[in-house]
Amino acid sequence: MNPILPHTFDMFIIIALIVAALAFLFAFWLYKWVKKRPSENVRIAEIGQLIRDGSRTFLRKEYVMLSKFIGIVTLLILLFLPSPIWNGSPIANISMALACIAGAVFSGVAGIIGMHVATMANMKTAEAAKEGIKPSFLAGFRGGAVMGMAVVGSTLLGVGVVMWTTHDPSLLLGFSFGASTLALFAKAGGGIFTKTADLSADLVGKVELGIPEDDPRNPAVIADNVGDNVGDVAGMGADLFDSSIASMAAAMVLAVALDGGATKEHAAMVLCFSAAGLLASIIGVAMARMGKKGNPTSALNNSTYVTTGIYGVLITLATWLFGFEWRVWGACMAGLLVGVVVGIASDYFTNDEKKPVRIAAKAAESGPALTILSGLSYGLMSVLTPLIGIGVSALVAYKLVEPLGGIEYGMYGIAMSAVGMLSIVGMIISNDAYGPIVDNARGLAEMGNLGEEVLEITDHLDSAGNTVKAITKGFAIGAAGLTVIALLGAFISEVNEAIARLAEQGTTTSVFGHQLTPITGFDLTNPMVFFGLLVGAAVPALFSAMLMLGVNRNSRRMIEEIHRQFDEIEGLKEGRPGVVPEYAKCIEIATVGALKELLPAGVAAIVITLLVGFIGGVQAVGGFLCGNIVSGLLLALFMSNAGGMWDNAKKFIEAGNHGGKGSDAHKAAVIGDTVGDPFKDTAGPSINTQITVVSLVASIAATLFLTLHIF
Amino acid sequence: MNPILPHTFDMFIIIALIVAALAFLFAFWLYKWVKKRPSENVRIAEIGQLIRDGSRTFLRKEYVMLSKFIGIVTLLILLFLPSPIWNGSPIANISMALACIAGAVFSGVAGIIGMHVATMANMKTAEAAKEGIKPSFLAGFRGGAVMGMAVVGSTLLGVGVVMWTTHDPSLLLGFSFGASTLALFAKAGGGIFTKTADLSADLVGKVELGIPEDDPRNPAVIADNVGDNVGDVAGMGADLFDSSIASMAAAMVLAVALDGGATKEHAAMVLCFSAAGLLASIIGVAMARMGKKGNPTSALNNSTYVTTGIYGVLITLATWLFGFEWRVWGACMAGLLVGVVVGIASDYFTNDEKKPVRIAAKAAESGPALTILSGLSYGLMSVLTPLIGIGVSALVAYKLVEPLGGIEYGMYGIAMSAVGMLSIVGMIISNDAYGPIVDNARGLAEMGNLGEEVLEITDHLDSAGNTVKAITKGFAIGAAGLTVIALLGAFISEVNEAIARLAEQGTTTSVFGHQLTPITGFDLTNPMVFFGLLVGAAVPALFSAMLMLGVNRNSRRMIEEIHRQFDEIEGLKEGRPGVVPEYAKCIEIATVGALKELLPAGVAAIVITLLVGFIGGVQAVGGFLCGNIVSGLLLALFMSNAGGMWDNAKKFIEAGNHGGKGSDAHKAAVIGDTVGDPFKDTAGPSINTQITVVSLVASIAATLFLTLHIF
Repeated sequence: MNPILPHTFDMFIIIALIVAALAFLFAFWLYKWVKKRPSENVRIAEIGQLIRDGSRTFLRKEYVMLSKFIGIVTLLILLFLPSPIWNGSPIANISMALACIAGAVFSGVAGIIGMHVATMANMKTAEAAKEGIKPSFLAGFRGGAVMGMAVVGSTLLGVGVVMWTTHDPSLLLGFSFGASTLALFAKAGGGIFTKTADLSADLVGKVELGIPEDDPRNPAVIADNVGDNVGDVAGMGADLFDSSIASMAAAMVLAVALDGGATKEHAAMVLCFSAAGLLASIIGVAMARMGKKGNPTSALNNSTYVTTGIYGVLITLATWLFGFEWRVWGACMAGLLVGVVVGIASDYFTNDEKKPVRIAAKAAESGPALTILSGLSYGLMSVLTPLIGIGVSALVAYKLVEPLGGIEYGMYGIAMSAVGMLSIVGMIISNDAYGPIVDNARGLAEMGNLGEEVLEITDHLDSAGNTVKAITKGFAIGAAGLTVIALLGAFISEVNEAIARLAEQGTTTSVFGHQLTPITGFDLTNPMVFFGLLVGAAVPALFSAMLMLGVNRNSRRMIEEIHRQFDEIEGLKEGRPGVVPEYAKCIEIATVGALKELLPAGVAAIVITLLVGFIGGVQAVGGFLCGNIVSGLLLALFMSNAGGMWDNAKKFIEAGNHGGKGSDAHKAAVIGDTVGDPFKDTAGPSINTQITVVSLVASIAATLFLTLHIF
Repeated sequence: MNPILPHTFDMFIIIALIVAALAFLFAFWLYKWVKKRPSENVRIAEIGQLIRDGSRTFLRKEYVMLSKFIGIVTLLILLFLPSPIWNGSPIANISMALACIAGAVFSGVAGIIGMHVATMANMKTAEAAKEGIKPSFLAGFRGGAVMGMAVVGSTLLGVGVVMWTTHDPSLLLGFSFGASTLALFAKAGGGIFTKTADLSADLVGKVELGIPEDDPRNPAVIADNVGDNVGDVAGMGADLFDSSIASMAAAMVLAVALDGGATKEHAAMVLCFSAAGLLASIIGVAMARMGKKGNPTSALNNSTYVTTGIYGVLITLATWLFGFEWRVWGACMAGLLVGVVVGIASDYFTNDEKKPVRIAAKAAESGPALTILSGLSYGLMSVLTPLIGIGVSALVAYKLVEPLGGIEYGMYGIAMSAVGMLSIVGMIISNDAYGPIVDNARGLAEMGNLGEEVLEITDHLDSAGNTVKAITKGFAIGAAGLTVIALLGAFISEVNEAIARLAEQGTTTSVFGHQLTPITGFDLTNPMVFFGLLVGAAVPALFSAMLMLGVNRNSRRMIEEIHRQFDEIEGLKEGRPGVVPEYAKCIEIATVGALKELLPAGVAAIVITLLVGFIGGVQAVGGFLCGNIVSGLLLALFMSNAGGMWDNAKKFIEAGNHGGKGSDAHKAAVIGDTVGDPFKDTAGPSINTQITVVSLVASIAATLFLTLHIF
């Protein structure tokens, strides 16, 4: 097809950088807008500052630890990747190491910006609620949108810069690996932090002492609010940054292979379609308002639909103008569509107007066991539609694009469908960061004594955040799924490139004497592949179990501390004026514990990947990645949806059903929610990051696995 | 290698039939031995008769429904399988239909025998406890062994007869399919029954009214005892019958392909090694005694180790005498070893002397949420070792046998390792059936007022049953795993045979115009395979969710009935002498409900398999089977082990730890156990059957999928 407008790859780099700049400008405008909102209440400012400081403390400690970790990883990369430095070219290793650091830094900076704004927007949102629900909604939403814009702007900026300076897509894998290492810390560490605080605050406050949620006497209450920010703002942002970069990296690796080692048409589409997604998100965020009926949930969902629509129009236009392949456009649309399907499926299982939540709430009347069983059952059931959706989308994308030139094109099609699904990620993050901001705002309104009316508004906004969160989580998992399938293609591409490179250098056998022949795929009847498949399937189970046990252990430490404070600080329990708990101690425990518990789980996942590679070579790794993807998606969807369902079942009862607050059914539902919390906020969404990290490790260590495997 | 003794395949058929006959004779002797034990207590005889009648009611209704189901399935087979009757040979279809019926009948008869004896042995065991723990143990063990012998005898008899009369291993797949359909009803139906009764009896009896377990006033108490028999005796027996037949069928299909369409060396090894396993089990059962220290758990475990040892010696002898390949012997040993490893791993996570149970029990002090989270976490963690074990065993078996002649040999090696793992199944079933017998005996001792001392003995025996059950369940899941991997090989073999057959008839394209080319494997980078993989992974989740929701619904019906009886029957609550609840009503509800709830789940699994086949053809089915295996094993292990852990955590607390019976920790642990019950006794072990059924459906419908798929 002849293009109507002439174009080069470099032109799209410039377009991408311009759109990224636009996003940053827009983020800055949003930031200014939020900052201008009035804030008067001294108490809120005081507590807000505590939350802010706590969040910073966590981020600082996390980044310190991360620097050490990344330092070690960078050193290893420098020595061994893409190939041992004494065998290959030092420049390749140095570039890869730098790319890895850059990935972590870009994602880290986006996280700092997002947190900075979110921990200000929460106060503004609380105070805006005095003027009504609409301005309050807007303050929360725009505060969250800063994170969305910063993350996606950084994504595009990073990819643009790496491609501009090097034109080498393999380095994008390194960049992506850096980003995903940060995501592992941010998401899993933040997840452990937030649930440690939440669980401990609830178990001692609500259950033991019967004081309300967000009661300022509770020493863990600030930690709980900090947790919302570090887990859901910084964590989710890093997670989606990671998926987004990974999908672009995978697509770019495959595209450049198709373009014959240069960056042409196919590479251009990756940048063009991603830039279009960010543009669509900017417009979507700018247009977001609450309708006349004043329903925040529809406002959030509508802005997602608007963004999706605009994106569809933009890429259609681009394809037409630049003469891109319509088949690739189709693959991208397939991904976008599946994003919506996965979202709707998650919504069905977690929305309190649908059957599953209603049944789980009803079951609570017969005690905690039955409500937990219902949640586990529906959680398991909820995986069917998304898994079929992801499978169909990959299939459609492949079959659409394959006729252009074979298997490699098919894999590129899958990667482009992942790019399509992740295109509107700016919008998704905005919606997602809205949740913890309004959740915090609710807490601030309570602690600042803003009155019943304001509390009602913030409650309403908070519940919308919860509903939307279930959908964005489903989306994030689906996107990670398609991305790692695309990374599988990138892995093969990397392996074959390494074989060609080694052959050029005269190496045709591995250290242990295996012949190096290009691979075409991974055959399930090859027992090495099947072995990898089984081990790969076990890893997300192990990883999520370690995180949840981490929450358990960490909570016990924190509960002890809360008990100590109530015992030792005179007048605290009675709420004597002027007596304040030592909030910082709880934040300290949550921070230190989270980082301590996270490390073994992350290291285990990476080490097992390396072991499988060194034992069974690339065939075992291929099976391993597939097993990891399948079981990872299954468990992540199961946990997220089960958790979301229990949460909403509890809220449904609190709204006055089945006996309402304080009834036996409510107590049962609270237990369900407590089980669900680490499910949906720690383990479930961290699995995304785990499968991405592992896929990237496999890709960048491809040469090592080729030359150094035992069997 | 030259044989020392000359042999033919028919000779091994005769040996197999002789060993089967031995097993039946031994079962008869055991039956007589158990029957001769004294029984005097009228009350026990009365209640025992109720349990007996209830079990029979369930079996009768189950078999009636099963006959209808099998009737429909047989009709479909007659019309369509192995190929549509108007295209292929009617005789092939008729034989396949007959084989399917025979499989169901053989397994059914074994189930009836086992139940008949188990529901007598429970009374004998209770009364024998008056004389001490040793005779009581022996009565329980030997009662269970009748089931073990009957099941494995039937297996060998069935395979022997089918091979003798037809020499066609494809028919074994039909036979196996019949057996696995029965297993689906027996295991999943029995599982729903037993947990409906257990849950309802506990929730109303223990939790609401605070009356003890097995209190005769509870209208559900007999149903609860019936449930132990139908779920754990008949269900587990049918499940292992099914796995056992399936592993032999898979091995035989592959062996005959290797033997060039005849039955020679490789086919002979299947029969010879299976017969050796039964012989070893007979000896092991005969030798089982309680040692001087009187520990029933070690008595059970020791008899398993003894059997394993004898088996090892027997097959070594056979391999030497008959000049079999030592490599195949190695594959068989690898399977046997993994069986032991999986058992030990399950034991670690469910034994109350190990860390996981201790931690779950300790967590109960902080309420039900934390104990449930611990159980879920350790349950997830517990999948690692077995999955690696199964993967390694398949890998070792393949790599050992492959050098004999290529891929087909490798697959045969895997099948033989499944045969090896299942060889000692006679012993495993005996141990397993021991559990419900002594559980029943405990109930009878309580209801028959045999006194504290007797109760203590039966409690002790019961707890050993629980510990051993965790191991046998792990074993059953591991065995099913290796079996379905072997069935994957059989599936390929069936597909290629069908292609050859069709080519002979002049058909080289499918109805929709696809070229029919022999398949060599399933490539994960083929999106059709990957699509199948994802859908296949979702099926066990859906299936287990449907069963658990079935238990939920069914329990609600039963709880209503129990409430009604306590409300309407005067004097029941107070325990007025002569006032008896309407036990039969509860049994009726459990039976009808179980069968009603089971059907949609079973049909869904089969229909999805067929849909995937008709949509994506054999490649999609290949991926589907692998996804099904991986996620099925993962979920089955997770559920079984989490359930076992909660059960034992509760028992650990009841033994006086963390506050003992009646403490808050105990209440929390009871909730954990209630969640775990349908996990470990309904959903988890039923997944075995589901993956086997689906694998067999794929194999026998291979020709259909080849000729009739859309994409």
